Amino acid sequence: MSEVFAARRSRLRDRFAALGSAAALVSRPANVRYLAGGAPPGAVLLLSHSGPADDVLLCPDAPSGDPADGRLDEGLLLTVLPAHGGDAAVAAAQAAGTAGAESLAVEEHHLTVARHRALTSVAPRLSLTDLGGAVEQQRMVKDEDEIACLRIAAEITDQALGELLESILVGRTERHLALELERRLVDHGADGPAFATSVATGPNAGRARHRPSDRRVEEGDFLSVCLGANYRGYRCEIGRTFVIGTTPAGWQIDLYDLVFAAQRAGREALTPGTEYGDVDRAARQVLRMGGYGDGLAPWTGHGVGLEIDEDPQLAPAAMGKLDACVPVTVEPGVHLPGRGGVRIDDTLVVRQEADGGPELLTITTKELLAL
Amino acid sequence: MSEVFAARRSRLRDRFAALGSAAALVSRPANVRYLAGGAPPGAVLLLSHSGPADDVLLCPDAPSGDPADGRLDEGLLLTVLPAHGGDAAVAAAQAAGTAGAESLAVEEHHLTVARHRALTSVAPRLSLTDLGGAVEQQRMVKDEDEIACLRIAAEITDQALGELLESILVGRTERHLALELERRLVDHGADGPAFATSVATGPNAGRARHRPSDRRVEEGDFLSVCLGANYRGYRCEIGRTFVIGTTPAGWQIDLYDLVFAAQRAGREALTPGTEYGDVDRAARQVLRMGGYGDGLAPWTGHGVGLEIDEDPQLAPAAMGKLDACVPVTVEPGVHLPGRGGVRIDDTLVVRQEADGGPELLTITTKELLAL
Repeated sequence: MSEVFAARRSRLRDRFAALGSAAALVSRPANVRYLAGGAPPGAVLLLSHSGPADDVLLCPDAPSGDPADGRLDEGLLLTVLPAHGGDAAVAAAQAAGTAGAESLAVEEHHLTVARHRALTSVAPRLSLTDLGGAVEQQRMVKDEDEIACLRIAAEITDQALGELLESILVGRTERHLALELERRLVDHGADGPAFATSVATGPNAGRARHRPSDRRVEEGDFLSVCLGANYRGYRCEIGRTFVIGTTPAGWQIDLYDLVFAAQRAGREALTPGTEYGDVDRAARQVLRMGGYGDGLAPWTGHGVGLEIDEDPQLAPAAMGKLDACVPVTVEPGVHLPGRGGVRIDDTLVVRQEADGGPELLTITTKELLAL
Repeated sequence: MSEVFAARRSRLRDRFAALGSAAALVSRPANVRYLAGGAPPGAVLLLSHSGPADDVLLCPDAPSGDPADGRLDEGLLLTVLPAHGGDAAVAAAQAAGTAGAESLAVEEHHLTVARHRALTSVAPRLSLTDLGGAVEQQRMVKDEDEIACLRIAAEITDQALGELLESILVGRTERHLALELERRLVDHGADGPAFATSVATGPNAGRARHRPSDRRVEEGDFLSVCLGANYRGYRCEIGRTFVIGTTPAGWQIDLYDLVFAAQRAGREALTPGTEYGDVDRAARQVLRMGGYGDGLAPWTGHGVGLEIDEDPQLAPAAMGKLDACVPVTVEPGVHLPGRGGVRIDDTLVVRQEADGGPELLTITTKELLAL
């Protein structure tokens, strides 16, 4: 695996060298993990212009070897700061300054103003430039090892959800169902939940990112769930909506069919070269034509990987085109205040049509089940 | 309650006015919640020099009313940004600039360089100064309502832990025990865990902030747990170490007695006027005299409240003196690589001796139980 991380760092090095920087400091944890294999708490990565042999991971404490931090690339130099030496970014700037670097590209969207000033004060001759979202952009297209982790994360997620559907739901609270789903994710091999599990019943159903409350499941409710596993750092997402009881009401069937059609339109728009905004539009216009133009979430989906919400955003004003091997969610929903609603959410990998089109990772049925 | 929040804002206003700033922008979520009663996602608080009637909470979206966000002070002006209007801090700077403010104090330890630049670019005439940790400092001494929330959080925590002790432990994994503790916290009324629950067995026991693994509890193990409830935003912490099986080994009893003595020394040092470093020293020197000077955690305790790890730090080089009504943890521990160890952790409120001395919130027994 070591070559994978060295290759990622080389690509980034080409990028910041082209921008005129001699060295780069990566501090955002998911970016550190992407480039170093792991990210012990507080660790930062100092990339030298000269080559991978001089790249250093600086850690405030000795790495604990905790699998949740990932597995560090063994080809990388490791510097543990002496006796809880404080901010590793400051130590990295000092090291870069001492090594005679003239400029250092930093992640200005991650470093606080106070940390940035501390860097300047320990290395006053170092010119700090902005690395911007260079690592985030590089992270968008996944390699097959990354997709394999996402595939396993999705399998775990489908299993946890499948078991919940076989249990008795009426009378249980949103909070309890969410905790049970998280326990099942871990049972099936997840390192943990990919994000806070959402369970929404009755009037809450269909609300994006609803936080579970003490409301209990009742007959006739819509029940919407959104969950995902974190497997080796990679996070996926699934969302489904069910009806509690024997027969869905007419309005429930109509709303479900509409959201399902919107979600399908979004999924079908996932081809390499499609504008992000066009994927959003494909799903959104189905909802709009159904009479639900107002109050929709500002996005229809987003990238997933080492973070649950990463580039690209599938939103009306998002700029850019999909590439192959980009995993994204497609998750339109409608929420009717006071009545509830429907969300349907899958994780898929964008693929060339010749390769069979978008690869669906979360395969739990999207029929409207009455539980 | 509204007066409480207005009074907190008035105290802060006096502070930044004395520093020469006309207005202040509070962006760190726990600080927003402290001053506004709640903190919907992405909300920032703009405090005017002129008085509480002009204070505004700016939210990127309409507050959902989710209890986990707290209850907003109804005496506060609320501005919801139009249609997912992006960064509320940028909108606040623009509003301050338009209102003719000349300077705005911001939280430089929270704002990223990129956000700070966005503020400057929308309000170029506004001089941005640093509010520093003014709100964090004000949050250290708690009022009786805050302490009441912490007391309930501690009761919930004691109940969850007590139930675990009655169940069968051998053969279960650290991860499962941690998830079960979190479920029990919610069962007893917590809004959620105060932090990621730690369960450490055998060679992992006694490690500070150990993340639960798939290791199973075995006969003869030390088992150390660290957990806490979040109740209305207030977070407490308890840590206990047990022995699995009928009789602890001699080395286990000796190590336990030593850590217990260190923790008692730390607790007894909690009097108003005591230097933070002296509390740390009281506990640390017991461990040192027992022969465990090396490899100790760099702190013996820390403040708790709206965040699980807030000021003051009880650490060798920490500067400052304890006040009454400051809740802190006292949590010394020793970890012997390959063998395990002991941590004992309580949440207490510093009180005058005339008021009975430190108030212990987490009352689960600290006898060495064999489970």
